[in-house]
Amino acid sequence: MNTPREFAAVILAAGKGSRLKSGLHKVLHPIAGRSIIDHLLASVAALEPARTIVIVGDERQQVIDRVGDRAECVVQEPQLGTGHAVAQAKDALSGFTGDVLMLLGDAPFIKTETMSDMLARLRAPDAPAVVVLGFEPSDPLQYGRVITHADMTIEKMVEFKDANEAERACRLCNSGLMAARAEDLFDLLGRLDNDNAQGEFYLPDIVNVAVRDGRTCAAVRTDHPDEVAGINSRSELAQAEAQWQQLKRAEAMAAGVTLRAPETVFFSYDTELAADVTVEPNVVFGPGVTVASGATIKAFCHLEGATVGEGCEVGPFARLRPGAVMEKRAKVGNFVEMKKAVLGAGAKASHLTYLGDAEVGAGANIGAGTITCNYDGYFKHKTVIGERAFIGSNSALIAPVRIGADAIVAAGSAVSRDVDDGELRMVRAEQLVKPGWADRFHDAMKKKKAAEKNKRGGR
Amino acid sequence: MNTPREFAAVILAAGKGSRLKSGLHKVLHPIAGRSIIDHLLASVAALEPARTIVIVGDERQQVIDRVGDRAECVVQEPQLGTGHAVAQAKDALSGFTGDVLMLLGDAPFIKTETMSDMLARLRAPDAPAVVVLGFEPSDPLQYGRVITHADMTIEKMVEFKDANEAERACRLCNSGLMAARAEDLFDLLGRLDNDNAQGEFYLPDIVNVAVRDGRTCAAVRTDHPDEVAGINSRSELAQAEAQWQQLKRAEAMAAGVTLRAPETVFFSYDTELAADVTVEPNVVFGPGVTVASGATIKAFCHLEGATVGEGCEVGPFARLRPGAVMEKRAKVGNFVEMKKAVLGAGAKASHLTYLGDAEVGAGANIGAGTITCNYDGYFKHKTVIGERAFIGSNSALIAPVRIGADAIVAAGSAVSRDVDDGELRMVRAEQLVKPGWADRFHDAMKKKKAAEKNKRGGR
Amino acid sequence: MNTPREFAAVILAAGKGSRLKSGLHKVLHPIAGRSIIDHLLASVAALEPARTIVIVGDERQQVIDRVGDRAECVVQEPQLGTGHAVAQAKDALSGFTGDVLMLLGDAPFIKTETMSDMLARLRAPDAPAVVVLGFEPSDPLQYGRVITHADMTIEKMVEFKDANEAERACRLCNSGLMAARAEDLFDLLGRLDNDNAQGEFYLPDIVNVAVRDGRTCAAVRTDHPDEVAGINSRSELAQAEAQWQQLKRAEAMAAGVTLRAPETVFFSYDTELAADVTVEPNVVFGPGVTVASGATIKAFCHLEGATVGEGCEVGPFARLRPGAVMEKRAKVGNFVEMKKAVLGAGAKASHLTYLGDAEVGAGANIGAGTITCNYDGYFKHKTVIGERAFIGSNSALIAPVRIGADAIVAAGSAVSRDVDDGELRMVRAEQLVKPGWADRFHDAMKKKKAAEKNKRGGR
Repeated sequence: MNTPREFAAVILAAGKGSRLKSGLHKVLHPIAGRSIIDHLLASVAALEPARTIVIVGDERQQVIDRVGDRAECVVQEPQLGTGHAVAQAKDALSGFTGDVLMLLGDAPFIKTETMSDMLARLRAPDAPAVVVLGFEPSDPLQYGRVITHADMTIEKMVEFKDANEAERACRLCNSGLMAARAEDLFDLLGRLDNDNAQGEFYLPDIVNVAVRDGRTCAAVRTDHPDEVAGINSRSELAQAEAQWQQLKRAEAMAAGVTLRAPETVFFSYDTELAADVTVEPNVVFGPGVTVASGATIKAFCHLEGATVGEGCEVGPFARLRPGAVMEKRAKVGNFVEMKKAVLGAGAKASHLTYLGDAEVGAGANIGAGTITCNYDGYFKHKTVIGERAFIGSNSALIAPVRIGADAIVAAGSAVSRDVDDGELRMVRAEQLVKPGWADRFHDAMKKKKAAEKNKRGGR
Repeated sequence: MNTPREFAAVILAAGKGSRLKSGLHKVLHPIAGRSIIDHLLASVAALEPARTIVIVGDERQQVIDRVGDRAECVVQEPQLGTGHAVAQAKDALSGFTGDVLMLLGDAPFIKTETMSDMLARLRAPDAPAVVVLGFEPSDPLQYGRVITHADMTIEKMVEFKDANEAERACRLCNSGLMAARAEDLFDLLGRLDNDNAQGEFYLPDIVNVAVRDGRTCAAVRTDHPDEVAGINSRSELAQAEAQWQQLKRAEAMAAGVTLRAPETVFFSYDTELAADVTVEPNVVFGPGVTVASGATIKAFCHLEGATVGEGCEVGPFARLRPGAVMEKRAKVGNFVEMKKAVLGAGAKASHLTYLGDAEVGAGANIGAGTITCNYDGYFKHKTVIGERAFIGSNSALIAPVRIGADAIVAAGSAVSRDVDDGELRMVRAEQLVKPGWADRFHDAMKKKKAAEKNKRGGR
Repeated sequence: MNTPREFAAVILAAGKGSRLKSGLHKVLHPIAGRSIIDHLLASVAALEPARTIVIVGDERQQVIDRVGDRAECVVQEPQLGTGHAVAQAKDALSGFTGDVLMLLGDAPFIKTETMSDMLARLRAPDAPAVVVLGFEPSDPLQYGRVITHADMTIEKMVEFKDANEAERACRLCNSGLMAARAEDLFDLLGRLDNDNAQGEFYLPDIVNVAVRDGRTCAAVRTDHPDEVAGINSRSELAQAEAQWQQLKRAEAMAAGVTLRAPETVFFSYDTELAADVTVEPNVVFGPGVTVASGATIKAFCHLEGATVGEGCEVGPFARLRPGAVMEKRAKVGNFVEMKKAVLGAGAKASHLTYLGDAEVGAGANIGAGTITCNYDGYFKHKTVIGERAFIGSNSALIAPVRIGADAIVAAGSAVSRDVDDGELRMVRAEQLVKPGWADRFHDAMKKKKAAEKNKRGGR
């Protein structure tokens, strides 16, 4: 039978990342609107592992809550090194006879293809005991080295500080990612010692143990050193974000999206933009945004959980919050916020407006300064505006309220009762006229100002 | 007579640019607020050509409409290569005895001086048959090469794929831009063959035909390889935009403009800023903006078609739309929009305001939340506010309406009738007082909330 | 007695910087919200000089006003070179027997440690007559060179244009910063000649005079060439700003602040962010901002003189102006401005609001479109809102006014009289209902539109 062996992913996420100086566990910090561990779990899931195990330790409840039912969490306590961390999975994997792919919780950008390559190498006819993912960074710094023979089988793994001159000259570095059959792995882990300065059990040492046994171990080299970059500081977090954004921007442009200033546009992991969408400078996409063809997102917009239809115009200075839906050719202008609100085809809300918990019919015109009063301090209520209705400027629509089709609300009205189709509703007090009053007020105030000035001057 | 020969510009714009994945023709995509073809036509016009001919093909009506009466459009259909494209101009140029300058519609940044250099070389005493503009990119990639003698006369033109090792080592690449006398050009074009893999007639081959005739052909080299960069993808479009912006920012700073973070300021092709203007981070200038000396544009502003006077302050978070005019020392603050509106000297609109179709007198004060209600759903109407008038906060001015000089509009008023000079206008209902009502409401709502919670919990 | 000798700082700030094309003196242009001269005076003050003297010349009153009582200003008039400039301090320093540290007003980023190094070298046992700060720029351009012996004592100072091939190959450049004992300095300055093309007295020549006397002169080299970068154009001003921001961003991240896109966040010289603060893209911090732990500043915010408490949320699109104070877990949302206003713990102002001269109690809810009307054209007045009060949307609070605890203001109310605790206040006119009116209006307007169109068409 040709079915490849099953595999289990073991993700090391015990260290909280003290260099981040955060109350939040390292793997829970977000990149592109999704936590580090979520990025990694999504990539792993694409390979359909038989089991996914996350090794947790510091601040473990945060990680366990986040992982939910997507993986089993196994506690490492105390934390005695990376080899010790993987060894904690032994009980959980008791009886499991497949392969084990060892990943780092803080290196979320490992490509699915790279993981496949590692597993394929492990399953090759020469059956290596361990497969190590190596990478060649532009500056090898103080990484541990993978010393290989010409055929990429491994002679030894060596920590930088223990490496001699020739070994340091070797550019293939240890990514920390490995693969091994479960039975080999736990046998090798059981034979590690912690005879080193830190008193820790190091995972790479399993290679040296295996080599001493006369077993073959093999390196796989990635051509994308960025994919194994670890995130151990806020600065590395920012670099990871930048790397992710750069890739996403290039993808968007290749797919036919105009980014006038790509470096000023920030995407989330799931942003979907159709061809012939235009995005002006300084736009931030939170999670859950879809934009259809021909739409333009002008400068200084913030979108999250929003659906923008064909040919819509958004902004500048617009904010679309979760549940905002713009149907085709709708327009949302400056200083306008939408939340759980549908703006019908061709409808417009051009200025200084809040549409929350609202349905606006096609072709309606929402005047400047319109506010849907959707909250009474305890409950949210809904505003429904009919097709082609005209809401005069500076109006307050006090929900629950329904404005009929073709209805008109006069400017400055606070509407608390339903308005029928084709009806005019005006809520406006009498114009109180006081001729000359302002002139007298100005005179009085100027005198008062002058008096105050004199008083200050006289001190 | 010493008048130089006339010249005709022939611009190749038949290919729509399928790599852009756009419904819009490649040469119509904007850079700095102006389409690619507009940039090129403006540069060409500066040289006063006798004729300007644009070769159109794909999506030609879009291009023809855009070009208008600034050039003659000639159709290439079908499209059988660049040589075939230029050949389409033969009838249009019948009887024309001057020079022909061949340009690429998707390479808009060719400098006027470079074009002059090409024409000057063509008119030199040795009378070359063809002049080719060569460039030396930092990475020559797979460009065709211009193989020259020491005196920059051309030995041959060679496609990269046909070039031998020595030819590939030559760094002078073919920009695609050429010049030739009309009579030479159409004779040479008539002798091209399409005996190649693509079955196309290649323009550069005219050089090889001429050289075989024993004619001299000459290369002119630009020192600015960027000026011949072609735009064939959204990514190249973004690079062209970036290149243009960088140049413009440097020009602005050299002219005495402070750009606190130049990389975050985006100009249009016609933005005019005087010396001692300050621009804070994140400002976008659409077309048609002029800013006078001493004005400050604060962070997060969007200006388009606006005139900003001496010493004005704009923003942060201000939007000036076409027709916005700020006279000297006027101030527009956060979340304020102006459109077809004049703000007199020293007048202020500091917060959350919409001024549309309005005239505001010198020294007037427009309170927070003021809206000019300029649209009735069918027509726009005008608001005129006198000098030193004071518009109380949250007022709606229902146009057409006139507020007199020194007049006061009380806060929260919706003003639908003219207000005289020095008059107070107040439009406000009675204060309805319900002691203890809110306490009772809170009690009732808290009970309702609790009941709902119990209900949910009980499921 | 081991007390080191006193020192006087002499700062050259006579040249106004004509390349900036500004009405403002060069040293008064701001970087990170603080003028160039202020940056330098702060660094110098950290060393506790006995005297600080600023040499002023062009536009001197601007500089004198800015410097205030932090330094003595001495006029150089006319300006006959850098040596002449320092010589102007002779009278002011008459009787002063300590060291003189010569600094450049347009090179504000000199590190305190570097200045200490220069003074320490001057005070070394070999007692050099002059100490020169040298630097090695990546591109030495046309800087004057410091020609040294192996022990870093100086053989000669040479202007680039007078340097021979060997001297130009020397990479140590003259920063212009020097130190000398007062008595040596003024003696050497008195012996300078102006026998050169410009007819100026050059400060570096004092080294050559001393060397001819057989005195030792010594170079100190900085490892940070950026710290001596001079600012002579708007472009160099922008570079200095960028260099400062990059450093500050790195510091913030190292201290545990998340900057999702560091390159889009702009700090002021005194911005203070606690660990576990998150700053989204596109945020500008003006002077005087403090943000406590756990707070999030969302995209597109502008803060100045503001205090943001623990766990607060700000923005997107929020503006906090001087005197804005957010207590813990308070929230300010989009298109909201605060100025001289306190928002109590857990209170919220989520949309389109202006809070000026206001105190908002803990847990209060400020509805969308609320405006505090704090200004009557002459005086500012205060609004006080009680704990847990609920201000309905689109309300105007006409200060001075007090809204009681747990009180409710109905949406759309303009409140001009105090509201008691637990009271409901509603200021709202009758709902005027005109059934069918809007339908008739639409019909009439459509006819009018059509008539206008016909009229235009008939021309």
